[in-house]
Amino acid sequence: MPILVVGSVAYDSVRTPFGERERVLGGSATYFSVAASYFTPVRLVGVVGNDFSPQDRQTLLDRGVDLQGLQEVAGKTFHWKGEYGYDLNSAKTLETHLNVFAGFRPQLPGAWKRSEFVFLANIDPDLQREVLGQIHRPQLTACDTMNYWIEGKRESLLETLSHVDILLINDAEARQLSGEGNLVRAAAKIHSFGPKTVVVKRGEYGALMFRASSVFAAPAFPLEQPIDPTGAGDSFAGGFVGCLARTRDLSEDGLRQAIVCGSVMASFNVEDFSLDRLRRLTEGEIRGRYRDFAALTRFSEVPVHREV
Amino acid sequence: MPILVVGSVAYDSVRTPFGERERVLGGSATYFSVAASYFTPVRLVGVVGNDFSPQDRQTLLDRGVDLQGLQEVAGKTFHWKGEYGYDLNSAKTLETHLNVFAGFRPQLPGAWKRSEFVFLANIDPDLQREVLGQIHRPQLTACDTMNYWIEGKRESLLETLSHVDILLINDAEARQLSGEGNLVRAAAKIHSFGPKTVVVKRGEYGALMFRASSVFAAPAFPLEQPIDPTGAGDSFAGGFVGCLARTRDLSEDGLRQAIVCGSVMASFNVEDFSLDRLRRLTEGEIRGRYRDFAALTRFSEVPVHREV
Repeated sequence: MPILVVGSVAYDSVRTPFGERERVLGGSATYFSVAASYFTPVRLVGVVGNDFSPQDRQTLLDRGVDLQGLQEVAGKTFHWKGEYGYDLNSAKTLETHLNVFAGFRPQLPGAWKRSEFVFLANIDPDLQREVLGQIHRPQLTACDTMNYWIEGKRESLLETLSHVDILLINDAEARQLSGEGNLVRAAAKIHSFGPKTVVVKRGEYGALMFRASSVFAAPAFPLEQPIDPTGAGDSFAGGFVGCLARTRDLSEDGLRQAIVCGSVMASFNVEDFSLDRLRRLTEGEIRGRYRDFAALTRFSEVPVHREV
Repeated sequence: MPILVVGSVAYDSVRTPFGERERVLGGSATYFSVAASYFTPVRLVGVVGNDFSPQDRQTLLDRGVDLQGLQEVAGKTFHWKGEYGYDLNSAKTLETHLNVFAGFRPQLPGAWKRSEFVFLANIDPDLQREVLGQIHRPQLTACDTMNYWIEGKRESLLETLSHVDILLINDAEARQLSGEGNLVRAAAKIHSFGPKTVVVKRGEYGALMFRASSVFAAPAFPLEQPIDPTGAGDSFAGGFVGCLARTRDLSEDGLRQAIVCGSVMASFNVEDFSLDRLRRLTEGEIRGRYRDFAALTRFSEVPVHREV
């Protein structure tokens, strides 16, 4: 089952304690697409400038990503520049140039209007709804957002959320969106905004999935040498929604399996800069790390207690 | 199998955003003992002043804790005063009065010198070794420590660690002790100091257990209303070592089950001030929350991938 994703395709300049890269391929839709492509076909809606290189386009095509919805317009591709400290947990943004993204109006190719799985990456909530409005009764809609929209476009964001099944969000943003310091209460509040499933991403601490009457906790994979966390959240989303589109299993069990697939793809992504690790994965590596996650978390379900 | 624990018995004055308490029962050995008492008999080695109240002594006796090794001397009981902000993740110490603890020399009752399970709570590493030296070939020795000893008594601490099977330590302290920013490498370094098992406590993010060729990740239980984290680490240790002494299963599976027991006891402890929640638990509640942990973390072990 193909997934339609709308989001940014970007050039990133990134510095971490382990190196730096100038104007390498990035963007939320890019990371999402490449991660999801290991599970299901992907349709990418976005915009690039005429500086977008044939090699970078080829990186996406090599993963079978359908680029019919990727507009190329005169001007420069979206550019982000940022750096990370030793804990790699939060980025410091140094520069953001929207460039061609500033005038972006998403247009879906006709056949894509019946996409059943939709991911609205972290863009203006007005644009998220503009995409959603063009799609005929999707089976599953998931979205991401960030502090910038929570602060600056709260009403529009709440309108988007009322149409969405799953929100993926980081812990600080979940607190900010809900006005609740405690994550259990934050998730309950966000449920009341619309999304029945709230996935809280906590970086190196893993992810929590909150639904009406269940919580699922997945750790992050303990890596000896993470290099660059850029795109980890979007890679997570790609593995998560990709798995759901592949299995079409939206039960609690299916969602949990998808969370682990998301964690697997995020863990690979941080092992190198840009898409360098994600684009050259093998099926065997993905299955192997999924099994490593199982080994990491497995324990006897039989409680122990003192004999009375 | 009884556990011998040496550590502090204290009066704590605590303020959290959810209330405050003046001079309530606390101390590492106290939290450890009450938590462990739900799994196995406990022998407490420590010291209190002649201000220690009969009711507080009774709290320990009610849980069957053997107080033959609890010295009572002229003077005041150890006193700690601290407060927590909204995230409850780190305490700010306002006052520490060692009082009678300053002159503490642990003396083990004769019969206790053949204790097979030993927990050295967070005290001066010289004292930790003084206790260990009095015990004849224990089967399992676990210990805790803190930044104060890592900075101020590093050589003595390393000497203690060379005699210990399991170190329980928080994440910041693991980094400080090892000089490694990454936890995987930090744990490997600490293994080289002696402890074959390193348990890294991460507060609301759960715990990681590192052994030579395995890692286990346990989440913390997502609570809607944590009240006071004081003693959470010692309650964790009590559930952990208590479970091991109960099952005598020191295999990987046994250690993982014990980590979950530790997480269960820590999760109860933070639900109220002092020992107020821990002392009135039922076997049913403990077994119930253990099952809740299983439900929180369970997922299909079968990987998903895209058909080729």
